[in-house]
Amino acid sequence: MNILITNDDGVYAEGLLALAREISKIAKVTVVAPDRERSATAHAITMHKPLRVERVNLHDCHVESWMVNGTPSDCVKLALDALLNDAPDLVLSGINRGPNIGTDVIYSGTVSAAIEAAIYGIPAVAFSVAAYENVSYDYPACFARKLCESLMEKKFPKDTLLNVNIPPLDDEDIAGVLITHLGNRRYKNCFDRRQDPRGKTYYWLAGEAVEDLGDTGSDIWAIKNNYISITPIHFDLTNYEVIDNIKKWELEP
Amino acid sequence: MNILITNDDGVYAEGLLALAREISKIAKVTVVAPDRERSATAHAITMHKPLRVERVNLHDCHVESWMVNGTPSDCVKLALDALLNDAPDLVLSGINRGPNIGTDVIYSGTVSAAIEAAIYGIPAVAFSVAAYENVSYDYPACFARKLCESLMEKKFPKDTLLNVNIPPLDDEDIAGVLITHLGNRRYKNCFDRRQDPRGKTYYWLAGEAVEDLGDTGSDIWAIKNNYISITPIHFDLTNYEVIDNIKKWELEP
Repeated sequence: MNILITNDDGVYAEGLLALAREISKIAKVTVVAPDRERSATAHAITMHKPLRVERVNLHDCHVESWMVNGTPSDCVKLALDALLNDAPDLVLSGINRGPNIGTDVIYSGTVSAAIEAAIYGIPAVAFSVAAYENVSYDYPACFARKLCESLMEKKFPKDTLLNVNIPPLDDEDIAGVLITHLGNRRYKNCFDRRQDPRGKTYYWLAGEAVEDLGDTGSDIWAIKNNYISITPIHFDLTNYEVIDNIKKWELEP
Repeated sequence: MNILITNDDGVYAEGLLALAREISKIAKVTVVAPDRERSATAHAITMHKPLRVERVNLHDCHVESWMVNGTPSDCVKLALDALLNDAPDLVLSGINRGPNIGTDVIYSGTVSAAIEAAIYGIPAVAFSVAAYENVSYDYPACFARKLCESLMEKKFPKDTLLNVNIPPLDDEDIAGVLITHLGNRRYKNCFDRRQDPRGKTYYWLAGEAVEDLGDTGSDIWAIKNNYISITPIHFDLTNYEVIDNIKKWELEP
């Protein structure tokens, strides 16, 4: 099996290295990842400047690896269209430092790389650990390997990817695996207004996550209750439920 | 009525100016838009550098206008959280030069600005003209104004925005207005490989759109047949249809 790995924390991120090492036990791995952190790049692609590709050696991990001066989506496009001789059987993105749950998914470079693969018709999984400090990738990488092994026997849903979030716990403390929908997680008080040394105003994006825990089927509930959350994601953003209602508006040119 | 206008072609783009002029006939307009073109930025937000805001005068258009050194999503966040005293009744994005149909929507800064507004619970509409050369914004801006007037009387669907694409035609040649779903429009042969003067390889993202016209309910079909296309878009990317199937996989931690 051929597996392509990318991420949005950059090619030298610890989470990518842990994933590449573990997955190389079961498959031929190629890494194509951004040259630096590209968090919150969402599905941005680079149209107005050329992309450069450079081979890199990942510490203590003998897999073919490339870094790209672009976004996670650029990496997947470039790998599939220009760098790889054969299409991979599976594309993995991560392991991201920090959760990608609820509305986070809209902004996430990690998830967008997996969406890009799904657009090409290739099964894809995004992995994130739900912690920012003192993150251990040992169990998450191990779970990722086991999940990939399971996926080999399953019929992967069409035009869909899996968004996996793993609580920052040892394996014996994980409550189980839940198949979830995206929950409601937004942000409030988003900007910190400051003055620079020349008295000019600037703004830092800041803000606090506002989570709605109400729904037990959501990814947010799963993570808070020590479950691994797996959410199937698709890229058809049409809100089909309201089409008939809007047709009744009888809009005219 | 207070209306916020943004775009991804930059604050000085012709399409934004046409929209701001026309909408200021029916509402108090504020413009908060990127300082330069930000196409294909998708839903990227700026977390790792400060944002600067500057007042600008739009040519021949007396509306309060600001430019931001950020993405379309940054502009909407900053407007709603820091710049505007009152939340707008409606957020408009555009008018974009070039269509945003099918899978384009995933990459579109224009649509993402409207998604950001919808995340804040504010009704939002993204406008694009389906042409790149010799674009006239006169009829599209006029249609945008009429649509906004209609929307005042309607119950705008929750957590949804409207993605409007307008064919590059005079009003008498427009076949009508269709409420559509996103069609299937992907790209092939995406990269152009070149050598720089020092013999090093670089890649340009290129490629040709591959459209599937089969489905008469799609935005692609509508535009090709001279209809204005209005697609309701939401930001819950969960693929609910496959959740039950994946539950049957009985995955373990």
